[in-house]
Amino acid sequence: MNCAAVLHALRDTGSARVTELVTATGLSRPTVTAAVSTLIDDGWVEEADSSDSSEASSPRMGRPARILRFRADARHVVGIDVGPHKIYCAVADLNGAIVAHVRRAVEPLSSPADLLEHVETTIGLAMAEASIPPSSLAAVGVGTPGIVDEQHESVVQVPSVPGWSSLELARLLRKNLGCPVQIENDVNLAVMAERWDGVGSDVDDLVLVQWGSRLGAAVLVQGNLHRGAHGAAGEIGFVDVEDEDPQGIRPDGQGPLEASIGTSWILRRARSLGDHHSPDAVAVLKAAAAGEEPALTVIDEACTHFARGFAPVLAALDPELVIIGGGITLAEGAIVEGIQRHLGARALVVPRLELSTLGDDAVALGAVRLALTEAEKRLLDAYASPGA
Amino acid sequence: MNCAAVLHALRDTGSARVTELVTATGLSRPTVTAAVSTLIDDGWVEEADSSDSSEASSPRMGRPARILRFRADARHVVGIDVGPHKIYCAVADLNGAIVAHVRRAVEPLSSPADLLEHVETTIGLAMAEASIPPSSLAAVGVGTPGIVDEQHESVVQVPSVPGWSSLELARLLRKNLGCPVQIENDVNLAVMAERWDGVGSDVDDLVLVQWGSRLGAAVLVQGNLHRGAHGAAGEIGFVDVEDEDPQGIRPDGQGPLEASIGTSWILRRARSLGDHHSPDAVAVLKAAAAGEEPALTVIDEACTHFARGFAPVLAALDPELVIIGGGITLAEGAIVEGIQRHLGARALVVPRLELSTLGDDAVALGAVRLALTEAEKRLLDAYASPGA
Repeated sequence: MNCAAVLHALRDTGSARVTELVTATGLSRPTVTAAVSTLIDDGWVEEADSSDSSEASSPRMGRPARILRFRADARHVVGIDVGPHKIYCAVADLNGAIVAHVRRAVEPLSSPADLLEHVETTIGLAMAEASIPPSSLAAVGVGTPGIVDEQHESVVQVPSVPGWSSLELARLLRKNLGCPVQIENDVNLAVMAERWDGVGSDVDDLVLVQWGSRLGAAVLVQGNLHRGAHGAAGEIGFVDVEDEDPQGIRPDGQGPLEASIGTSWILRRARSLGDHHSPDAVAVLKAAAAGEEPALTVIDEACTHFARGFAPVLAALDPELVIIGGGITLAEGAIVEGIQRHLGARALVVPRLELSTLGDDAVALGAVRLALTEAEKRLLDAYASPGA
Repeated sequence: MNCAAVLHALRDTGSARVTELVTATGLSRPTVTAAVSTLIDDGWVEEADSSDSSEASSPRMGRPARILRFRADARHVVGIDVGPHKIYCAVADLNGAIVAHVRRAVEPLSSPADLLEHVETTIGLAMAEASIPPSSLAAVGVGTPGIVDEQHESVVQVPSVPGWSSLELARLLRKNLGCPVQIENDVNLAVMAERWDGVGSDVDDLVLVQWGSRLGAAVLVQGNLHRGAHGAAGEIGFVDVEDEDPQGIRPDGQGPLEASIGTSWILRRARSLGDHHSPDAVAVLKAAAAGEEPALTVIDEACTHFARGFAPVLAALDPELVIIGGGITLAEGAIVEGIQRHLGARALVVPRLELSTLGDDAVALGAVRLALTEAEKRLLDAYASPGA
């Protein structure tokens, strides 16, 4: 119990003297000293190199007090973004600092067995890049498209990845990795990253729109992730506001709104408007950012469709901030201006609008955050349990 | 302080013996006895008529213990629903039991001064009906359409009632009524009533859709009312999903979606389909409930429009339950079946759907609840303050 209190205090401050830990924990000096010895023996705490600390180098009387530091590199966590086209894996220390990352393209429509193998290989590569042994892995967080169950165990429904639905992903990975594994919807993880380290860090009520080849959103209410009664909150890619008969989920797994504004549509539409030199959607988005036609027209049309489907979301939630993330951010000012103008014409109240600055890393960063929370909980629990 | 603790315990249980209050409060018997004397003197507590209590009439040795009861009729609260066409006022005792109610039609487009006078007259009539003197009024809750500020003081924006916007309604009423007055959006109050005493009493994540001549919604997240960053959460009447140029707020203050499915539209559409005998929308809705054409067709069309605008709300929130309230409930099974079918074609997950059973009273009941909370807070605060 005392070890847990000391560890908790040291995690909060980063480094501290015994005197400061006595104040922070309310424990006696001998108790703190004993707990520190245990934590040093167990590898969680070290004495800081005195040259690291400006305080320690200031002139003092007598022997300088030991400065103790939480060993953030004692263990590591992995955050991994598993999409239908790519796997992005980040390795972080226990302070959340990224020490290695690996990005691999995967074939679309891989089978679950293939994807599982890809995931494990990617984690192995990233760990190797950081020279970290598998035994150092404290927890893994996995981001996946689709609906994930409340226990962070199974993928419930992923129209876009055939075979991925009803997959007990966490159990399968845990078996091979030998550490806690939790899964979460990718956009839900991205919004956690925005709150943790992005443009949403000071906002409690916000919506993150992840807009690339897919379209999804995640909702924070009062600073808490709103997952919904069936884990399906924020699945705006499946919105269908067309007047004609509803289209439902398309054969390729895309929902109606994402099919009409996603990056595949953007490239097709640019071609149909005479843009024959852009090799991919990225080129079209960059052309829009540079103010070139017909890219600007394409973005404007996409924003019209988006505003029609998204204005009702604003009417329901009235958030303080909407963050736009995903590949669409390459269009920079053109996408912000387009969304603002078209939402302005359709929404009673238009919230503040910001582009995400986290780029491709957002989901993996959120997954790191999920894994860190689990690792910290287990670490503190281990010392707080009666046997410790 | 002791009075507040005893009062709180007695409010929770309704009635109790001194012995039970000693257990509930953790105070000594003499302290509880003294507090009870003060509360009896102040009029908040009375000795229950022993014939009221089955416990007291059971055979006991010696003198029966006094049964003490909170005097719910010591003061009263008023909940009032102020709409552009009607004012509905309910008077309740401190247990929330309605002791009188008055409903008055008002001219549409009344000026704020007229409306204020109507509100005060209606409160006076309801208090008179219950034979309650103005001095008994402990708090007033007011429901109004539109956006209300976070302090429950002012109406910020009400497109449907000209002149009502930017009105410091709470202050103006407080001046004349001499008791605390709080205002809140009418649909927000209705959802509080549903949670308190309606079909939503066991549900934490729900959306109430109030569908009559107007259309609005209120959102509960984790059991808490979600007001939104600008107090505009749930304003779905202003949703506009049409492909053509956005219509915005119409000259009569209606939003695009409410103008295309509200009861005025329902009557007009029934007429255009050859229904020349229904005198009003109520008749059309009742005809739909009875399975008659063209009313059924009209309801089906309204449900198509509704589903197009509301499915994105479900995609954002994924609630456990959607409650349909307002005049549209007169269509009974026809409206439930229509909404379910059209949402089923457009939403990834369709939540449970229920018709409200509170009818016309919902907003006033929620306003009573708002006033009760304020009255209880003030009562307990008065005894908990250092001078008491």
